[in-house]
Amino acid sequence: MANSKYEYVKKFETDDRLPPSSWIVVRIDGCHFHQFSAEHAFEKPNDENALNLMNSCAASMLEQFPDIVFAYGVSDEYSFIWKETTQFYQRRASKLLSLSVSYFTSVYVMKWKEFFPHKELKGPPYFDGRVVCYPRAKIVQDYLAWRQVDCHINNQYNTCFWMLVKSGKTQREAQELLKGTQAKDKNELLFQQFNVNYDKLPQMFRKGSCVYRKKVEEVVKLVDTGNPVTRTRSKVVVEHKDIIGPKFWSELPYILKEE
Amino acid sequence: MANSKYEYVKKFETDDRLPPSSWIVVRIDGCHFHQFSAEHAFEKPNDENALNLMNSCAASMLEQFPDIVFAYGVSDEYSFIWKETTQFYQRRASKLLSLSVSYFTSVYVMKWKEFFPHKELKGPPYFDGRVVCYPRAKIVQDYLAWRQVDCHINNQYNTCFWMLVKSGKTQREAQELLKGTQAKDKNELLFQQFNVNYDKLPQMFRKGSCVYRKKVEEVVKLVDTGNPVTRTRSKVVVEHKDIIGPKFWSELPYILKEE
Amino acid sequence: MANSKYEYVKKFETDDRLPPSSWIVVRIDGCHFHQFSAEHAFEKPNDENALNLMNSCAASMLEQFPDIVFAYGVSDEYSFIWKETTQFYQRRASKLLSLSVSYFTSVYVMKWKEFFPHKELKGPPYFDGRVVCYPRAKIVQDYLAWRQVDCHINNQYNTCFWMLVKSGKTQREAQELLKGTQAKDKNELLFQQFNVNYDKLPQMFRKGSCVYRKKVEEVVKLVDTGNPVTRTRSKVVVEHKDIIGPKFWSELPYILKEE
Amino acid sequence: MANSKYEYVKKFETDDRLPPSSWIVVRIDGCHFHQFSAEHAFEKPNDENALNLMNSCAASMLEQFPDIVFAYGVSDEYSFIWKETTQFYQRRASKLLSLSVSYFTSVYVMKWKEFFPHKELKGPPYFDGRVVCYPRAKIVQDYLAWRQVDCHINNQYNTCFWMLVKSGKTQREAQELLKGTQAKDKNELLFQQFNVNYDKLPQMFRKGSCVYRKKVEEVVKLVDTGNPVTRTRSKVVVEHKDIIGPKFWSELPYILKEE
Repeated sequence: MANSKYEYVKKFETDDRLPPSSWIVVRIDGCHFHQFSAEHAFEKPNDENALNLMNSCAASMLEQFPDIVFAYGVSDEYSFIWKETTQFYQRRASKLLSLSVSYFTSVYVMKWKEFFPHKELKGPPYFDGRVVCYPRAKIVQDYLAWRQVDCHINNQYNTCFWMLVKSGKTQREAQELLKGTQAKDKNELLFQQFNVNYDKLPQMFRKGSCVYRKKVEEVVKLVDTGNPVTRTRSKVVVEHKDIIGPKFWSELPYILKEE
Repeated sequence: MANSKYEYVKKFETDDRLPPSSWIVVRIDGCHFHQFSAEHAFEKPNDENALNLMNSCAASMLEQFPDIVFAYGVSDEYSFIWKETTQFYQRRASKLLSLSVSYFTSVYVMKWKEFFPHKELKGPPYFDGRVVCYPRAKIVQDYLAWRQVDCHINNQYNTCFWMLVKSGKTQREAQELLKGTQAKDKNELLFQQFNVNYDKLPQMFRKGSCVYRKKVEEVVKLVDTGNPVTRTRSKVVVEHKDIIGPKFWSELPYILKEE
Repeated sequence: MANSKYEYVKKFETDDRLPPSSWIVVRIDGCHFHQFSAEHAFEKPNDENALNLMNSCAASMLEQFPDIVFAYGVSDEYSFIWKETTQFYQRRASKLLSLSVSYFTSVYVMKWKEFFPHKELKGPPYFDGRVVCYPRAKIVQDYLAWRQVDCHINNQYNTCFWMLVKSGKTQREAQELLKGTQAKDKNELLFQQFNVNYDKLPQMFRKGSCVYRKKVEEVVKLVDTGNPVTRTRSKVVVEHKDIIGPKFWSELPYILKEE
Repeated sequence: MANSKYEYVKKFETDDRLPPSSWIVVRIDGCHFHQFSAEHAFEKPNDENALNLMNSCAASMLEQFPDIVFAYGVSDEYSFIWKETTQFYQRRASKLLSLSVSYFTSVYVMKWKEFFPHKELKGPPYFDGRVVCYPRAKIVQDYLAWRQVDCHINNQYNTCFWMLVKSGKTQREAQELLKGTQAKDKNELLFQQFNVNYDKLPQMFRKGSCVYRKKVEEVVKLVDTGNPVTRTRSKVVVEHKDIIGPKFWSELPYILKEE
């Protein structure tokens, strides 16, 4: 029983290989996470466990897929930067997208218990995703700056909003109070009304999370003389740093190195 | 702090809306499932629990996404047919693909314990996926026939192969013995050497699994006279039928109805 | 001197083959023809010679490319319908588009003198183009109906507009007078003010032009008895018919026949 | 008569805007020019008039489309480099392609008489085309080097081939003689048998043609003292230079300047 009669249907598949010499960004985003976070009683505006779970999944991604050179996460979204020369699955967009989002989802569910030992999953968490190509490292930096600026704007707003709500305002009242306020006004509000210095809030909330490989010196053994023998190893780290300015990138030029 | 300076990076996103009046097929496929099934000691050639888990996930997909009108699964792959007129996420390919594969994966991990109560997941199962458009219902039927013929060819081969291996042959010997054999030869081999009538093996193994909505009569209540009051309800069912011939489709014309 | 060092640049080319089983429409459109028609003093609202030149070029297209089954033209635009099964240049969109627009342009310039023997070309006429796929013949008919309705709306407006201008109104006055008028109002205006019965104007102006192959009986020779020997031949014709209603298509079912 | 009923067909059009920050190459290529050049008795291996006509058309392209920054031509093909930041027709691929190929074709037919005053066009010359995006200036240079290397390889072969044919060999014999020969062998053959120094052949044949804008000093007027008043003007020039090495590009850095 040959299958040739029906194989013509394969001709409808399209070639979706992404252009060479482009950085590939896969950004995934929690689907209906507003509802999901309510169902699972996430802390507002930031649930540390939920963020740590996201970061842990992102770190697993870098362990699993060596061609991801950097990841940046905030709230329920994460961006993965694949190196410009990756030949993973011939750069086919649908493969890169589906594998990334599926692996991330799988790890998220598997690790849930580790970060929420006392909460059962009430429904399947899931994510959507998209793929975007950027022709130059400089533009990838701008992409990441765009996400971090967004993190800042949203977090500052959300911090004010939930402070107001927790202090007794209705959500509508809080919304009204914040309408049209500038960054400075919000900082002022936090300080005056709640004695909160925004800049002292945890870095993870204000800066989001960066995941990448860092070269670390590792002690392999101590020789008889007591001197340590070390070797350089690449280790996936999660940090909360400014990636808008040039400092981060100039200190770690290998991350977005163009060939 | 406005975000306008970096927002230009959004212009690199492409419009990936699929053409109107086309049936959309999302096919997902287990990634490295050869290894995954070995690690988790799946029965060979078919693990009933593993297949039932796949089918259960597929049924969840139809419950979650009303615009999926049909799903067909075999081994570690599943095809989902979205109706030609769906406007889900504006028919954006990356959304349909990522949501499908992510939701399926999430349910797979969550339901694992239900189908494998005595096995721990040793690593994250994950899937890749692709999206293909078909302009006519007739071609969608041919697509599904293509998958079912494939199911048949593979299952017959695998049944012989694992019978031989279980009877003491090495995998290489089994491979050699089957090289060049026709369907008839394989049936003969099963019957002569192992007293197995291929056609009597479970339908699920030989035909794969179809998931779709069926109109069922449901008893709502019994009235005083003892007569039942019924109503018609749409229920997601999993069946193992021939979908190559015209019979299935002519009996259920609403599934692939064109507008 | 091998060329291998630079051949990597070919990898940046994308596969632009159009999906199988789709009708392909290439629509070309005069570029800056408002200016071009002014420079060459085209009659307003319709220049018969200019339209006949367009039609002659379209007929040449059908002679040159056997897989074009139908063409419809109005003003400085022409749509060419390639049959759904064409394998011309593997259905590559850029090939179909560029060849169509280039051949049409070439013939347009070459035939100019035939239709405008007393006018020199003052600058290069040129066209842009686009490619659109339609999955079913019925939608191709709707596409063509869309163009013919457009032809009607524009022609009726332009007829009124230029009548008013020729009668002494400024272009702005004419525009103002026509603002908000319905089809009926325009017919009335033409009849009352200019004694013109719109329905009696040339079909070519009101209906646009259809180009297709017609089966004709041709006398090959006269035999001794004086009886003609005929054979059926396919001949490219230009006609000005209604293609919105079903009549045209039901009389010539072979034109958009689906396989 | 509203057109709304049929306007849904517009939804089948796809968004074909090319990604930002990419150089756009439109390459056009003579269609059936083997036959066309035979019909019009072009000189072999190079017809100077035919090449000059091509170059003149390319120069017109740069006059017409300011965003084309460079063009390179050889034989019946021409590549046009659009600057990376062009917003011409919103970077829509089909517009850029169709306009380029149509304008080139139109000028080709119009200028034919100028370059072939004693030859009538026997049929419409036409071109196909394609669009390719390159993310960096360096890769555009490699693209152009690829075309010039090709020019060299083909021209050397063709020069030998036609020398042999003109000296009495059949085309098949010439082909056989050249099979497997290296560049050095071909130079030797030309010198030994035909006393031709390949490097002394016209630059246009060996290097192809570059078309670009050059800043030139222009005498505007002579003042009373007899001193000329000059101004800098941008002028489209046609030259035949090496563009494989870095020299050309380092002398004219503005041509492929990245932003």
